[in-house]
Amino acid sequence: MAHIQVPEGVPGIRSLVMFRPETGKPLYELAQVLLRGESTLSEAERELIAAYVSQRNETQFCLMSHAAASRALYGEDKAIVDSVLADVSTAPISEKLKALLHIAGKVQILGKEVTPRDVEAAREQGATDREIHDTVLIAAAFSLFNRYVDGLASWTPNDPAAYEEMGKRMAEKGYVQPAPVQQ
Amino acid sequence: MAHIQVPEGVPGIRSLVMFRPETGKPLYELAQVLLRGESTLSEAERELIAAYVSQRNETQFCLMSHAAASRALYGEDKAIVDSVLADVSTAPISEKLKALLHIAGKVQILGKEVTPRDVEAAREQGATDREIHDTVLIAAAFSLFNRYVDGLASWTPNDPAAYEEMGKRMAEKGYVQPAPVQQ
Repeated sequence: MAHIQVPEGVPGIRSLVMFRPETGKPLYELAQVLLRGESTLSEAERELIAAYVSQRNETQFCLMSHAAASRALYGEDKAIVDSVLADVSTAPISEKLKALLHIAGKVQILGKEVTPRDVEAAREQGATDREIHDTVLIAAAFSLFNRYVDGLASWTPNDPAAYEEMGKRMAEKGYVQPAPVQQ
Repeated sequence: MAHIQVPEGVPGIRSLVMFRPETGKPLYELAQVLLRGESTLSEAERELIAAYVSQRNETQFCLMSHAAASRALYGEDKAIVDSVLADVSTAPISEKLKALLHIAGKVQILGKEVTPRDVEAAREQGATDREIHDTVLIAAAFSLFNRYVDGLASWTPNDPAAYEEMGKRMAEKGYVQPAPVQQ
């Protein structure tokens, strides 16, 4: 049961933004701009960074849903997602994405963990300032979302099929704020 | 020097949202709603929660600026801020605010650290669901802001007078997104 009175049967962050739509609005806008806005990182890659950070923060709801969204967006190459979540170093992804995931992993710990050398390494693999910025902000944003979802103990479904459905919807429709509860 | 090319001489998060105004917009809106919107927690108390979390994340820029904003808002009682930052348990604040700061400290570590007992203890001191929600989200939001500011190594001024000025502006004007850089 959630720590506060949120709508029952509504999973994760959705129940929280229905409880408090005023803060939900900028949170959904942030997710939409970062994960679906114009970028040289694909939507599948950005969802993968989100899933990777959520895994490190042990937030099952965000991990399962964003991994599912990333799989839906990778399509035929969806096995990449589980390879990355198992071991970044051996996953079949570009060296650039590996360097960006390394930075995201540092941000998950704490901002100061990111060193000039980490950033230089990403740049050597072709990462732009904008890609480095967005990687840091995605990792920082999921440091928020993960804490928000777990800190209020919002509902985490167990059924993998529920997440597959959720991932498809996130891939197709992006981040659309749910309607607030009638109070 | 920051890890990416942001405007020089602009401190902290301001330089980052000038670099990337599309993500800056929801970030400033979130800060404004959470820290200045209608609430039964005073603006001074909310800024204090922000400063407390930033101190635990070792983010000097956010700590110094939000502590200054809290001092400006507490006015005559501004010594409360430094008492809390030195030791919550002996600080001259309400038991309710102590219980909420305890929850914020748990969220700073990780969402799952917050237990039903922590929430119950806050409720016994009169905290409402909305106050518990907002405390968790402020702590989660500063888990983002702190990582964003430090993860990109944005400029942290050293001069305490600069923060006093900044705190006054934040107390009076709230969170207004700076104009983007001309590119």
